Amino acid sequence: MSRISPVILCGGSGTRLWPRSRAICPKPFLPLVGESTLFEATVGRASDPAVFAAPIVVTGAAHLDHVEAQVGDDPEARIIVEPAARNTAAAIAAAALSLPGDAVMLVCPSDHYIADGAAFVTAARAAARLAGAGAVGEGWLVAFGIAATAPETGFGYVKAGEAIGEDGFRVARFVEKPDLERALQFLAEGTYSWNGGIFAFRAGDFLAELALHRPAIAERARAAMAGMRTEGRRIYPDAAAFTAIPSESVDYAVMENTKRAAVVPASMGWSDIGNWQALHAAREPDADGNVVAGVGGARAELVDCQNVMVESDGPRVSVIGLRDVIVVVDGDEVMVTHAEGVQKVGKLTGAANQ
Amino acid sequence: MSRISPVILCGGSGTRLWPRSRAICPKPFLPLVGESTLFEATVGRASDPAVFAAPIVVTGAAHLDHVEAQVGDDPEARIIVEPAARNTAAAIAAAALSLPGDAVMLVCPSDHYIADGAAFVTAARAAARLAGAGAVGEGWLVAFGIAATAPETGFGYVKAGEAIGEDGFRVARFVEKPDLERALQFLAEGTYSWNGGIFAFRAGDFLAELALHRPAIAERARAAMAGMRTEGRRIYPDAAAFTAIPSESVDYAVMENTKRAAVVPASMGWSDIGNWQALHAAREPDADGNVVAGVGGARAELVDCQNVMVESDGPRVSVIGLRDVIVVVDGDEVMVTHAEGVQKVGKLTGAANQ
Repeated sequence: MSRISPVILCGGSGTRLWPRSRAICPKPFLPLVGESTLFEATVGRASDPAVFAAPIVVTGAAHLDHVEAQVGDDPEARIIVEPAARNTAAAIAAAALSLPGDAVMLVCPSDHYIADGAAFVTAARAAARLAGAGAVGEGWLVAFGIAATAPETGFGYVKAGEAIGEDGFRVARFVEKPDLERALQFLAEGTYSWNGGIFAFRAGDFLAELALHRPAIAERARAAMAGMRTEGRRIYPDAAAFTAIPSESVDYAVMENTKRAAVVPASMGWSDIGNWQALHAAREPDADGNVVAGVGGARAELVDCQNVMVESDGPRVSVIGLRDVIVVVDGDEVMVTHAEGVQKVGKLTGAANQ
Repeated sequence: MSRISPVILCGGSGTRLWPRSRAICPKPFLPLVGESTLFEATVGRASDPAVFAAPIVVTGAAHLDHVEAQVGDDPEARIIVEPAARNTAAAIAAAALSLPGDAVMLVCPSDHYIADGAAFVTAARAAARLAGAGAVGEGWLVAFGIAATAPETGFGYVKAGEAIGEDGFRVARFVEKPDLERALQFLAEGTYSWNGGIFAFRAGDFLAELALHRPAIAERARAAMAGMRTEGRRIYPDAAAFTAIPSESVDYAVMENTKRAAVVPASMGWSDIGNWQALHAAREPDADGNVVAGVGGARAELVDCQNVMVESDGPRVSVIGLRDVIVVVDGDEVMVTHAEGVQKVGKLTGAANQ
């Protein structure tokens, strides 16, 4: 099997981990779990040269410095610099157009955490086998199905249908964010998993399906890449053409429409680190469930606290008598929230007006 | 009646309002309630020249800059600079020795809050009448009895005995910090009030009682003031003699021993601002019980919060979903405590190791 080409998406900035994650240095580029940033970990997970080719990173000019500082020194890595954010269908199309048609792409968001890197590689290989089955134009478009561990209402779900050999299943259907009742049903039912936004397909298969279901995106992406210029490892698509691409997610544009959608199960300690509570859960707590983290080893003193997370970029944080609370100190911002309030962080004035 | 001489004690630093109150700028010198500092408010309450003479401030060298910046420009004010902290009996003795024997002193801690300044003056005049009754050597030594509003276990209590005319009562007894059961009894009984550390007596009466009950303190204080030197408004007692004074509170040394102790009731919105919760209570909350305060008008956003107090010296503080919590940001320290944890603030590493 030829090597898999990781396509790493570094998109929007997000506000849900404010004030630590900010527009100028968003979530993928912060060392949130352990010593590596989420972006570095994403690159690292797909770096075994026996399995993976050099990565293609798709990002915006605003994050280019972070990407180049953290992507490593592989001379074959490529960085596609989007002239404007046009969602994931456009980003993946640009990457597909810079690869041979029979290359298997593995699309990876750069802001997720995966505890079990070996399980990730195993799932990637299974996905690549499905993606590579048949002639170009006949391979599977494969979604990773993240083993659901809770009735999450913030994720999309994918229902597995009939098995395709030993590697995966046909997709019976994709389901957008369900309400709690349905999420509980999905969890009980057993054939639903989370759609983690990780996909494998051949470049040619993706482009064929895109042309079929979203010809405008396919056509303008092709124009943008036809007019590209390169600068070292950087690829600059033509700005006017790229900006004209309709903005749509790969899920809506392709995965939910293609007849060749498959899913491979992946149980790999995945988290989207979608809010402060999720980050707390991904970190190693002490015996009381408390976590202290931050740049250069944060100083904190927790007295009579349970399930408290402190994150500081410098100041000492002293906490007394709290439970299920998150305290974040970053520059000129201090944020304190109950664990149940984490969904409102992104709507804080400071987060919304960056 | 001759004018009352305010004697304002600026003593120890305290740790219970850390990190806002610190050794280098302790509680009396901070604008904790309203625009004035507690020290400025203490001076201001006793500044009506129809009632009060110029103040005598007793403080240590560490706080001299703060005192001189905040005491006002009355050329007759005096500042006794203690060579070492020797508790309140020594401080008051030094002040008494710098006054005529028949001068009525009004001893005031500088770190308490009093909402009703007029009630304070009314009580001060009543106390002064009792203090000035009879010849020197026969006047009353008068404690302010603060109307008790809760079964506080952190305060001393004073029990009123038989009335002395219309101004006050003999003291039946002083009671040190009671347990909760006794505090509840005191509150129900009605003749107990809090000992707020505010006292009125003639200088000569105090010194006579001190000589009777604590001759060593009286003698060494006299030696310290005999060897004093002055420098503008400052009075420097002799360091060796002052340092040799036994360290004891005025309550233990004199008030609990004298047969001429009296109490005047004072209902004046008093608070010792003894911890962050007390400070919260002294401030004007919004409809949800929340308070935002700090240097230069703190920036804060409180979402789904009740009874939360935020104090910041600069950084914006955003809080979500908390109740009965206090957040304090000061320099390189952030302190977050449940209201029930405020008694532990002083034991935090940051507070204890200043």
